[in-house]
Amino acid sequence: MLSERPIGVFDSGLGGLTVLRELQKELPNEDFIYLGDVARLPYGSKSQSVVRKYAGRCAEFLLDKGVKWIVIACNTATAMALEPLKLELNVGISGVIEPGVRAALSASSSKQIVVMATRSTVGSEAYLKEFSKQSAGARVEQVACPLLVPLAEEGWFEQKVTEEILCRYLEEVSLPEYDVCLMGCTHYPLLEKSLRKVVPSRVHLVHSGFSVAQELKSVLSTQKLLKQERRKSGIKFYATDEIAPKLPMVSSLFGNQSQFEVVDL
Amino acid sequence: MLSERPIGVFDSGLGGLTVLRELQKELPNEDFIYLGDVARLPYGSKSQSVVRKYAGRCAEFLLDKGVKWIVIACNTATAMALEPLKLELNVGISGVIEPGVRAALSASSSKQIVVMATRSTVGSEAYLKEFSKQSAGARVEQVACPLLVPLAEEGWFEQKVTEEILCRYLEEVSLPEYDVCLMGCTHYPLLEKSLRKVVPSRVHLVHSGFSVAQELKSVLSTQKLLKQERRKSGIKFYATDEIAPKLPMVSSLFGNQSQFEVVDL
Repeated sequence: MLSERPIGVFDSGLGGLTVLRELQKELPNEDFIYLGDVARLPYGSKSQSVVRKYAGRCAEFLLDKGVKWIVIACNTATAMALEPLKLELNVGISGVIEPGVRAALSASSSKQIVVMATRSTVGSEAYLKEFSKQSAGARVEQVACPLLVPLAEEGWFEQKVTEEILCRYLEEVSLPEYDVCLMGCTHYPLLEKSLRKVVPSRVHLVHSGFSVAQELKSVLSTQKLLKQERRKSGIKFYATDEIAPKLPMVSSLFGNQSQFEVVDL
Repeated sequence: MLSERPIGVFDSGLGGLTVLRELQKELPNEDFIYLGDVARLPYGSKSQSVVRKYAGRCAEFLLDKGVKWIVIACNTATAMALEPLKLELNVGISGVIEPGVRAALSASSSKQIVVMATRSTVGSEAYLKEFSKQSAGARVEQVACPLLVPLAEEGWFEQKVTEEILCRYLEEVSLPEYDVCLMGCTHYPLLEKSLRKVVPSRVHLVHSGFSVAQELKSVLSTQKLLKQERRKSGIKFYATDEIAPKLPMVSSLFGNQSQFEVVDL
């Protein structure tokens, strides 16, 4: 039965684990297959055609594993590849941008919102388009933050230089009354404590993981795709390079339970 | 005639342009083909098997272009792929580690040398092996510096945070009298001014580009492979993604003369 199959989740690397953690909390009964395309990370500095090609291969891999739904747990891949993949695939697929925008709008009173993201995500303007679709009146400013992914992967979650780099990026913001800072990259929640120190206290820090999980639960329920059997659920981890489990950020998210199997796409 | 053919140079990205610049100075009569594998950068965080595969494809591409010699202008790819490629290819190939070690030893009086490099290069121990081959008595300490490549690509060559990150990495050094700091990644010369500010004034900063160029000139001369014709020489730039020429570091090295052709490997 389709509903008993696992949910596939992929990311350019391991930032998507922050989304997987929320999915697991919200859908504890489900099985998951996670794929981190670490052999080709980061996507965030690459062009649309290259990212589409890579995302297509990740989706194919998950389909071969028999998933019932695919979550793109990567902002860059969502921005560049979600729409074409929706047309090509014969299972449901969702990304992180639409739920992230919904969460940001619901947390904001001033409707002045700052989005931090990779250079590619910013260049795609996917966030700007989604904000104007959901709320014509919102004022949104994007900030490209290319150093945050390497900082998170280095495990420098709460270093002084991390705060300085965050300050440096946020200096550019010109919205006087922004009250939401949307972390538009699945790595960024790892830097949340540092980010909290450098933004004004009125500003809510929002990441998409929680709303991604809530909205997926709702859509699976509507489509009668929630798993019914009560046997113990599990996560299977795959990565395109053997270095994945050695990165400091992995153990901070899933401890030592995450055994990655290496695959060549 | 073989000698009239171009010299091929490849790197995981654009750091190799620092080597190309030295090659062009030392061998102004030669033609060059540069390939930056930006679609799969960085190599420095990936495993040996993945880097070997990528380097093999770069070498094949250059062979198809009819090069007479290949220079691997990337420390990680030299560390992980030079030896197997030497056995597989039917043209000469050289890397950046052996000449870099020679330059470092010749600049050092104390024979206490620090090597800054990517995590993969450090893990490969290629520098340690080459130093002990060339000088049994040298004391060498490696420091993995994963954030320096993204900093160079961001164009933050002389920022305060760049100095702080360099300090942070060099804090770990325990050799009391090191007098050479070898920049074991072809991106690092772009950060030389910041590095100069944070290391003691007695320390020589050495990068491999100059000795790579000198040694290549000498080997091409011995093998009668130096170009004889006096027509104007040129460089052809290729990259595996269209983002290459947009990175701030490109214009700082080759101005706007560098038009990249995008290829899919």
